[in-house]
Amino acid sequence: MLPKFEPSEDVLSGETADIYLARTIDILCHEKLNPVATMEVFSSGVGILCGMEEVKALLARVLPEDNCEVWALAEGEAMSKKEVVLRITAPYQSYGLYETAIVGILAHCSGWATAAKECVEVARGIPIISFGVRHVYPSVAGVMDYSAIIGGCTGCSSVAGARLAGIEPSGTMPHALIIIVGDTVKATILFDKYMPAEVPRISLVDTFKDEAEESLLVAQALGGKLNSVRLDTPGERGRVTADLVKEVRARLDLAGFKKVGILVSGGIDPERISYFLESGAPVDGFGIGSYISGAKPIDFTADLHEVEGKPIAKRGRIHGITPNPKLKRVM
Amino acid sequence: MLPKFEPSEDVLSGETADIYLARTIDILCHEKLNPVATMEVFSSGVGILCGMEEVKALLARVLPEDNCEVWALAEGEAMSKKEVVLRITAPYQSYGLYETAIVGILAHCSGWATAAKECVEVARGIPIISFGVRHVYPSVAGVMDYSAIIGGCTGCSSVAGARLAGIEPSGTMPHALIIIVGDTVKATILFDKYMPAEVPRISLVDTFKDEAEESLLVAQALGGKLNSVRLDTPGERGRVTADLVKEVRARLDLAGFKKVGILVSGGIDPERISYFLESGAPVDGFGIGSYISGAKPIDFTADLHEVEGKPIAKRGRIHGITPNPKLKRVM
Amino acid sequence: MLPKFEPSEDVLSGETADIYLARTIDILCHEKLNPVATMEVFSSGVGILCGMEEVKALLARVLPEDNCEVWALAEGEAMSKKEVVLRITAPYQSYGLYETAIVGILAHCSGWATAAKECVEVARGIPIISFGVRHVYPSVAGVMDYSAIIGGCTGCSSVAGARLAGIEPSGTMPHALIIIVGDTVKATILFDKYMPAEVPRISLVDTFKDEAEESLLVAQALGGKLNSVRLDTPGERGRVTADLVKEVRARLDLAGFKKVGILVSGGIDPERISYFLESGAPVDGFGIGSYISGAKPIDFTADLHEVEGKPIAKRGRIHGITPNPKLKRVM
Amino acid sequence: MLPKFEPSEDVLSGETADIYLARTIDILCHEKLNPVATMEVFSSGVGILCGMEEVKALLARVLPEDNCEVWALAEGEAMSKKEVVLRITAPYQSYGLYETAIVGILAHCSGWATAAKECVEVARGIPIISFGVRHVYPSVAGVMDYSAIIGGCTGCSSVAGARLAGIEPSGTMPHALIIIVGDTVKATILFDKYMPAEVPRISLVDTFKDEAEESLLVAQALGGKLNSVRLDTPGERGRVTADLVKEVRARLDLAGFKKVGILVSGGIDPERISYFLESGAPVDGFGIGSYISGAKPIDFTADLHEVEGKPIAKRGRIHGITPNPKLKRVM
Amino acid sequence: MLPKFEPSEDVLSGETADIYLARTIDILCHEKLNPVATMEVFSSGVGILCGMEEVKALLARVLPEDNCEVWALAEGEAMSKKEVVLRITAPYQSYGLYETAIVGILAHCSGWATAAKECVEVARGIPIISFGVRHVYPSVAGVMDYSAIIGGCTGCSSVAGARLAGIEPSGTMPHALIIIVGDTVKATILFDKYMPAEVPRISLVDTFKDEAEESLLVAQALGGKLNSVRLDTPGERGRVTADLVKEVRARLDLAGFKKVGILVSGGIDPERISYFLESGAPVDGFGIGSYISGAKPIDFTADLHEVEGKPIAKRGRIHGITPNPKLKRVM
Amino acid sequence: MLPKFEPSEDVLSGETADIYLARTIDILCHEKLNPVATMEVFSSGVGILCGMEEVKALLARVLPEDNCEVWALAEGEAMSKKEVVLRITAPYQSYGLYETAIVGILAHCSGWATAAKECVEVARGIPIISFGVRHVYPSVAGVMDYSAIIGGCTGCSSVAGARLAGIEPSGTMPHALIIIVGDTVKATILFDKYMPAEVPRISLVDTFKDEAEESLLVAQALGGKLNSVRLDTPGERGRVTADLVKEVRARLDLAGFKKVGILVSGGIDPERISYFLESGAPVDGFGIGSYISGAKPIDFTADLHEVEGKPIAKRGRIHGITPNPKLKRVM
Repeated sequence: MLPKFEPSEDVLSGETADIYLARTIDILCHEKLNPVATMEVFSSGVGILCGMEEVKALLARVLPEDNCEVWALAEGEAMSKKEVVLRITAPYQSYGLYETAIVGILAHCSGWATAAKECVEVARGIPIISFGVRHVYPSVAGVMDYSAIIGGCTGCSSVAGARLAGIEPSGTMPHALIIIVGDTVKATILFDKYMPAEVPRISLVDTFKDEAEESLLVAQALGGKLNSVRLDTPGERGRVTADLVKEVRARLDLAGFKKVGILVSGGIDPERISYFLESGAPVDGFGIGSYISGAKPIDFTADLHEVEGKPIAKRGRIHGITPNPKLKRVM
Repeated sequence: MLPKFEPSEDVLSGETADIYLARTIDILCHEKLNPVATMEVFSSGVGILCGMEEVKALLARVLPEDNCEVWALAEGEAMSKKEVVLRITAPYQSYGLYETAIVGILAHCSGWATAAKECVEVARGIPIISFGVRHVYPSVAGVMDYSAIIGGCTGCSSVAGARLAGIEPSGTMPHALIIIVGDTVKATILFDKYMPAEVPRISLVDTFKDEAEESLLVAQALGGKLNSVRLDTPGERGRVTADLVKEVRARLDLAGFKKVGILVSGGIDPERISYFLESGAPVDGFGIGSYISGAKPIDFTADLHEVEGKPIAKRGRIHGITPNPKLKRVM
Repeated sequence: MLPKFEPSEDVLSGETADIYLARTIDILCHEKLNPVATMEVFSSGVGILCGMEEVKALLARVLPEDNCEVWALAEGEAMSKKEVVLRITAPYQSYGLYETAIVGILAHCSGWATAAKECVEVARGIPIISFGVRHVYPSVAGVMDYSAIIGGCTGCSSVAGARLAGIEPSGTMPHALIIIVGDTVKATILFDKYMPAEVPRISLVDTFKDEAEESLLVAQALGGKLNSVRLDTPGERGRVTADLVKEVRARLDLAGFKKVGILVSGGIDPERISYFLESGAPVDGFGIGSYISGAKPIDFTADLHEVEGKPIAKRGRIHGITPNPKLKRVM
Repeated sequence: MLPKFEPSEDVLSGETADIYLARTIDILCHEKLNPVATMEVFSSGVGILCGMEEVKALLARVLPEDNCEVWALAEGEAMSKKEVVLRITAPYQSYGLYETAIVGILAHCSGWATAAKECVEVARGIPIISFGVRHVYPSVAGVMDYSAIIGGCTGCSSVAGARLAGIEPSGTMPHALIIIVGDTVKATILFDKYMPAEVPRISLVDTFKDEAEESLLVAQALGGKLNSVRLDTPGERGRVTADLVKEVRARLDLAGFKKVGILVSGGIDPERISYFLESGAPVDGFGIGSYISGAKPIDFTADLHEVEGKPIAKRGRIHGITPNPKLKRVM
Repeated sequence: MLPKFEPSEDVLSGETADIYLARTIDILCHEKLNPVATMEVFSSGVGILCGMEEVKALLARVLPEDNCEVWALAEGEAMSKKEVVLRITAPYQSYGLYETAIVGILAHCSGWATAAKECVEVARGIPIISFGVRHVYPSVAGVMDYSAIIGGCTGCSSVAGARLAGIEPSGTMPHALIIIVGDTVKATILFDKYMPAEVPRISLVDTFKDEAEESLLVAQALGGKLNSVRLDTPGERGRVTADLVKEVRARLDLAGFKKVGILVSGGIDPERISYFLESGAPVDGFGIGSYISGAKPIDFTADLHEVEGKPIAKRGRIHGITPNPKLKRVM
Repeated sequence: MLPKFEPSEDVLSGETADIYLARTIDILCHEKLNPVATMEVFSSGVGILCGMEEVKALLARVLPEDNCEVWALAEGEAMSKKEVVLRITAPYQSYGLYETAIVGILAHCSGWATAAKECVEVARGIPIISFGVRHVYPSVAGVMDYSAIIGGCTGCSSVAGARLAGIEPSGTMPHALIIIVGDTVKATILFDKYMPAEVPRISLVDTFKDEAEESLLVAQALGGKLNSVRLDTPGERGRVTADLVKEVRARLDLAGFKKVGILVSGGIDPERISYFLESGAPVDGFGIGSYISGAKPIDFTADLHEVEGKPIAKRGRIHGITPNPKLKRVM
C-alpha cells in the first residue's frame, strides 16, 4: 500500500521553486493570460520511476477540479530514455509554478530507486537493506529510503524511511556500542538483554578481534538466539572478501551454528555483489550505503506541447502530444 | 555572513537517524553507561567542506554546557582525503544519536559545494549561477543552492537557497513563458513591462527562431534596457557551441549592441566550460544545473578514538586522537 | 552501359610513367630482349575494382594484335586482399612502360568506388549522391565521380562525372546563390523560375534562418513544386542531427507537406549514415563529399610470374601463374 | 622558380565544376545580378599550402582587369586550421563557377605537400624521393610529384612531375628489368652500359638472392661506378629492417665499398623513417610511395563574406572580412 | 612408462630447504612433538600437473612404512586453480623438512608442462620439439625437457631430457657447424656422411644465403635423403614469415621435392603458431625454446589442515580436509 | 668474495647439452676440422649479468692452456640489450659442446639477479630477503638464491644459497610450527628457547588471531628479546595492507615496543614495494618469493664471428669482432 504524501508549505509557496517560474506566473496574471496548456515530462534516462505518488498529491492540491486532465506512469514502473511519464493538461497558471518541484521529486526519487533496482537485480534474491541515510541530508533521509524500497530493497535503517514504506526499520549494532562497552561479546549480550524479542540479534564481529574468532565467540555466548553476524571489515584491512565469508561459514558450521546467517556491508555495489555471488560466498544479506543514497538524480524535463489545443513546442522538440500507450489517466 | 541554522524536529527526535543508534542509546541508558568519548569525523575525499555551520547549530542544541569540547574546520574550507574535519569530546549519550545527521549533512553539502568549486575553478572569473533545483527533491533545494554559493557560485535560482545564502535569487525566463505568449520578442517586452527595475532583463533566444536572428530582434526591441541574451540550445539541435557564441557576439557588435551580454546554459560542466574558454568564446556567465545539484555526496565517517581519556579504535583505525593542526576549537 | 575510355597522350608517351620503366624499355631495346612475359596485378586490400575499363582501353591500344592474352576481373566486381585482378601475357616491350598507369588507374578508381560502396552498404537503399569534386584536383573530378557511381552512388554533382557515367548531374543550390540573392525563399523562387522542368526543386534551408522555420517558408512559397529541402547545418552550429531531421519532418507533415523530401549533407560518412538510420531519422537522400573523394587509393602491385613460359618471380612471391577462377579472358 | 600553370579547357568550361554553380551563374545572368562579392577560402586543417600558383593562373584568366582584388598566402607556406588562405573580391559572375576548381586544386595539392613535409621533418636531412605515381590516376601524376617537391622532397620518379618542378626525374631499376634479364648483376651491367653518364648507377638487390650477398656481387661487378644499392625487401620477407641496413653497410665496408650508398624503399612513412633513424641504420635515402601519393586531400571551404561592401555570411560563419595579416595582395 | 626418480642428497639433507623448516623440526624434536598431521598442497593456477612422480619417489624414501597415507593427482593430469593435488597424512617430523622440495618440484615442472601444453593445443597436431635447454641452468635441463614431453611435446634436444622421457633426442644442425665448414651444402653433406642412418637429415638453410635458394641447393645435393629444411631466420631479418614458408614450399614442389618437410624455429609461441596456421603456411614441425623453458613456475602452497585428526587451518584457509574426488591414494 | 664453482659431470659429459652440438663435434672430429674460432655471447635484454663465475670455472676446465683467449664482463655487472658479455677465442672443438651450458647458466642466473635488482632499486634501502626456493626445482635452489644475493638481496632462506653466497641463511618461522604447537605465543617462546642466540627472534603473527592483537601478545611474551613480527596475511584476507602495517606499528609503539621491527611478505613485487613506500608504511624488511624465483631467464645468444682470424657471421649478424670496451680479459 502506497503512503499518503502531503505537499509541504515550502513547495506550495514557491519557496523552493526557480524564481523565473514565479515571475512568469506574475507576468501572466498581469496580462490575464491563462490558457489551457499541456505540459509533458520525460526522463533523461532508463530507470525505475519513483516520486509519482508525491507528484500526484501535489497536483491534487493545486489543479482546478475540472478543466484538467493528468496522465501518468505508475510508481515503481520501468521507464525508458526520453519516455514521457507525466502529461498535465490544465490552465497554465494553476500548475506552472510547480514545475521545479515536480521534476525535482521525480529526479531524486527515481535516481535512488533505480540504483536500488540495479543492486537487487544482480543479487538473485538475497535481501538488500538500505544503509545509506548517513550519506544524505537528513530532510531526504526518509524519502531516500522509501525510494530504495520502491526499487526492491527489503529494509532500511531509518525510522522515517521505514514509516513511509510501511515497514519496520532494520539495523544491527554500531561499532560505537562495542567500543563504549569495550568488548563485542559483552555488547552482544547487552543488546540481547534489552532489545524487544522481535528485534533480530545480529552481532557486528569486526571491531576488536579476528572476524572468524569473534563470530564463534558471540555464537557461543548467545547460542540459539543469535540471528546473524555482520562482516564490515574496513578497507584498511582489505574489506570483506568472498573467502572470509566462506571461512566464517565453515567455522560456524563446524561448531554447530548452521542457522547463524552472515550479513555483509562496506562499500557494496552491484559489482561487489556479483563478485561475492560468482565466488560462491554464502552471503545471507547485503547492507548497501552510498551506492543507493549517492545515486545521481535522473534528470526530467518538462515541455509545453499544446496551448489551447494547438500543437506547439520549442525548437528541438516535436509539436503536439507525444503518444505513449503506457500512460494511464490518474486525474 | 553565515546563516542561522535551526535543527529540525525530525533530526532531534531521531526520526531520520539510523535505528541502531537509537537502540545503542537505549541500551547504554539502561546500563547507565555514559562515558566521555571522543568521536572524530573524517572525509572520504578531497573537497570543500560544507554543512559545518548546521552541524555546529545541532551540537549547540544537544551537547551539555560543560564537559564538552568541539574542534572543527570552517565552512567552505578545503579538506584533503581522510582529513579529520570535526572532533567532539562529550558524554556519549548526549550526541551518539546524531551521528547519522552529522555525517549526512556534511556529506551532501560538501558534495554540492565541491562540484560548484570545480566549475568555478575552470571558469577563470566568469560568473556561475546554480540552476539545478529542478533536479533535486524540494526539501534540499535551499541547502543545495546554499552549498553551491559556498563553493563559489555567484547566484542561484531558488528563493530558498538565496535566502539561506543572504542574496537575491537569479533567473531569466523559462521557455514556457515564451510559448504561452507565443513569441520571444513579445515575451521579452512583457517581462520588461512588469518586472521591478532591479531585475536584469535577460532574454532567452532559442525558443522559436535561430538564436542569432532572435538575439538581434530582442536587442532591437528593448534597446539599451536589454542586459543579456541566454543561449540554451538543446542537444537535439547540437547544444550551444563556442562558434555560436562567437557568431551571436559578432552579430550583436556589428549591430551596435556591444553591451548586451551572453549567458550560456544546458549541460554545462567543467569540461564544457573549458571547451568554451579554450575556444575563445566570449561567454559572460554560465548557468549550471545537474553537474552541481547531482554531485555525489562525499561520504564522511565517524569513529570513536578515546573513551574516558584512553586511546581506543576499531580494527583498521589508529588508537587515540588524530592530530590535525587545522582544527579550531568552536565549542 | 560502360563508357568509352580513350588513353591520353601523356600516358602513351610515358610522360606520367616512372622514369625507370622508360629506361628499362630503352635497355631492353638496345639488347633486343623482348620475351613474352606474364605480368599479374594484385590488390593490396579488399574492395570494389574500378578503372579496369580504362586499363583495357589502354591495353587495346598498345598490345600487339596477336601473341597476347589478357585476363581480368570486371569493372565494379568485388575483390579480396591480394587477389589477382589482371593478367597480361605479351611481349614485354609492348606494355612494360604502362605499368605505372595501369596500377595507378586501378588504385585511385578502386579507392573511390570502394568508399562509395561502404556508404551505400550502410544506407539500406537510401540514395547517395557524390558531392566531392570540390575536394579533388579538377583533372580527376570526372573519373572520381564515375568511380563513385560504379561503387553504387545514384548521382554526382560534376558534369564530367555524369557524362562518363551516362547520367544527368545532380545538384541543389549553393549558399552563394542565396547570399547573393539575399533571401532563401526568393532564391528558391528564382531557381524555380529559370530551371528547366526536369531539374528537381531542392531548397537549401540553413543559410539565414532556423532550418525548420525556413523549410516551412519555402514549402509554402513553392507549394507542390518543391521536391525536397536540403539540411547542411555547419559544424559551428552542431551539424545536422537526427532530431533535427525528425523535427523538420514533423513540422512539414503537420503543415501538409508530406511529399517534400529531406536531404542531408555535411561531413557524412558510413558512421554518420548509421547514426541517422539507427536514430530513426527519416532521411530521403545523403550528399557525400570527402569520405568518397578523399578515399585513400588501394595500392596495386604488378609482378612478372612467367618469362617465355617459365615460372619465375622475385623473392617473396610465388613462381608461376597464380590461379584465380574469377578471371575472364578479355583480349 | 615556380612553374607556369595553364588552366585546362575542362576547368574553364565548367565541365569539372559542381552543376549547381553553373545553374547559379545561369540564374544570376537571367536576373542580371552581378554584385561585387568577397569570397574567402579557408583550410580545414594544419599543413603546407600548395596549388596556389595554379589557382592564381586560373584567376588571372577569368577575373576582370579592374574592379577586382585577390589576396593570398604563398605556395609552400605553412597554414593553420581554419586560416583564410585566399580572398577574392570581384563581380561574382566572373569567378563563381570556378569555386569547385579553386578549392579542389588547393585540397589535393596541399594534402600531398603536407604529407611530404611530414616525412621530410622526421628524416633529419636524409633525402626523400617521391615514388608514388603508381598509386594515383595518371592525370594527377605530375601535379602530385610537383606537390611532393613543394613539401620538401628532393626528387620524384615521374617525368611529368620533374618537369613541373624544374628538376630531373629520379629512379633506379624495376624488378621487371632484373627478371627479364634473369640476373641482378647482369641487369646492373646492362644499365651501366646503356644509361647516360649523368644517371646514377643504383642497383636493386633483393630480387633473387640475399640482399647482403647481392650487394657485394654488384659492387664487385661495377666497382667504383656503383652509386648505391636499393633495398626494397617485400613484406612477405619481413620488409627492410634497420639491422639489414647495418649488415649490408658492414659487409660493403668490410669489402672496401665505403662509398656505395644504401637506399631504402617499401612501405616507408614517418614512423618507419623514425624507426630507421632511432635504430642508427645508415640509410642514405628513402623512396616514399603511398604515404605521400595517397595522402587525404585537406578540404578547403569557400564562403561569401561581403556583397557590395556589406558584411554578410551564412549561419555558422562570421559576417564580414576575416583579418589575416599573412595574406599578400597578388592581383 | 614413467621414469624412476631418485631423491638427491641435497634434498634429503635439507641443504636446498628453507632454513626455517629445519629449525622447526629441531624445535619439535626437542619438545618431542611429532603429531600425525595432514598437509595439503594446492596449485595457484590452472595447468598440467608435473613433478608428482618425483615427489612420490621422495615421499617413498622419507615417510614411515605405516601410519601414513598419501593421495595425489597423476603426472600430466589437468588441474584447476586452487585444486588440491596432494594430501599427506603422517607424523609431521617425517616430512615437514621436505615441504620446500615438494612444492618446488611441482612448481617448476608444472610450469614447463603447462607452457608446452599451450603450444600443443594450438598446433592442431603439428609436432613440437622442445629446444629450450640453452635458456635454463644445466641442472634442470633434463627435468625441463621431461616436463615438456609430459605437456605434449614429441621431442627434445637434450640428452638428459630424452633419457628421462624414454625417447631419442632430436636435433638438426647448429649455425656453428655451417660457419666452421663454411658452406651450408657442404655441411649438410658431411652431416649425411657421418651420422647414423636413423638420424633424420634436416638442413638449416638460413646461414649464408637466401632461404629459398639454399633450400633448393641442399635438396639437390642430398636428393631423396633430405628429410626437411629448417627455417630459423633471425629477427634482424624479419623472422620466419608465413609467406616465406609458402614460398619455400612452392619452390621445393616446383623442383620435385614434395617430400622434403619444413621446420620452423625462432621465437615461436602459441601466438606465432596460430599466425602460421591461420595464414595457411604448410609447416611440418615447430622448434620451441624459451616459451617453454622460460615459463613461470606455477606456485604451489602447502597447508596443514588436520593435526591428530582435528580440523585446523591458518586464517584464510578452511579447517579440515578439502574434498577432491580426483585424488587417488598412492601410498 | 666470490664462490668457487665446480663444473658438474653432467655438463662436462654433454648430457645436458643440445644433441646437435655433440653431433657437430663428432662430425668435425671425423673431418679433423678444429679451427680457432671466436664465439661471442650477447644478452637479449637489459639486466644484471650473473653466472659468469661459473662459466669461467667451466671454461678453465675445458679450454687448452694456450692458444686461447677469453674476455668477459664481471659477475653482477649491468649489461644492456644486445651487449656482448663474453668472447671466447680457441680451437672450436675444445668448447663447442658447452655452448648450451654457457648460455643456460647466464640466462637463468641473470634472470634471477635482474629481478632481485628491480626489487632492491625500488626499496630505497629497506632490506630484502629471497624467500623463493619453494617455487623452483631443488637443484637450482642454491644458485637461484646466490643470484638473488648478487642482485642485491641481503639474505636468503636456503642453506645452499647462503653457502654459495658466503652468508648465513635467513628465516622466521613457518605457519606449520604454529599450527603444530597450537598457539602463536607458545610457538614463539619455544623458538626462543631452543634457537641459538645469534638467530633473530621473528614471530609470524597472522596464523590464528588478528595481526595487531597477536603482535602485542608476542611482544609482551618475549619482551626485549623480540626482534620483529612478520605480517604475511593471505589474499583470502585481503593481503597485508599499508594501513595494517601502520596500525601494528602504532599499537606496538603505544605499548612501548618501539624497537620491534615489522617484516612484510606475501606476493611482494616492485609494484607492491612502491605501494607500501608511497603509502608511508613503516616496513623494516620485505620477504620476496616468486617475483625473483620465477623471473623469466634472460636469453643469451652465442655466435661465431671469426674463424681462423677471418671475419664471418650468419645472416643477420655483423661479420667480425663486436667492439665492447667494457670486456676484460679473464683467461
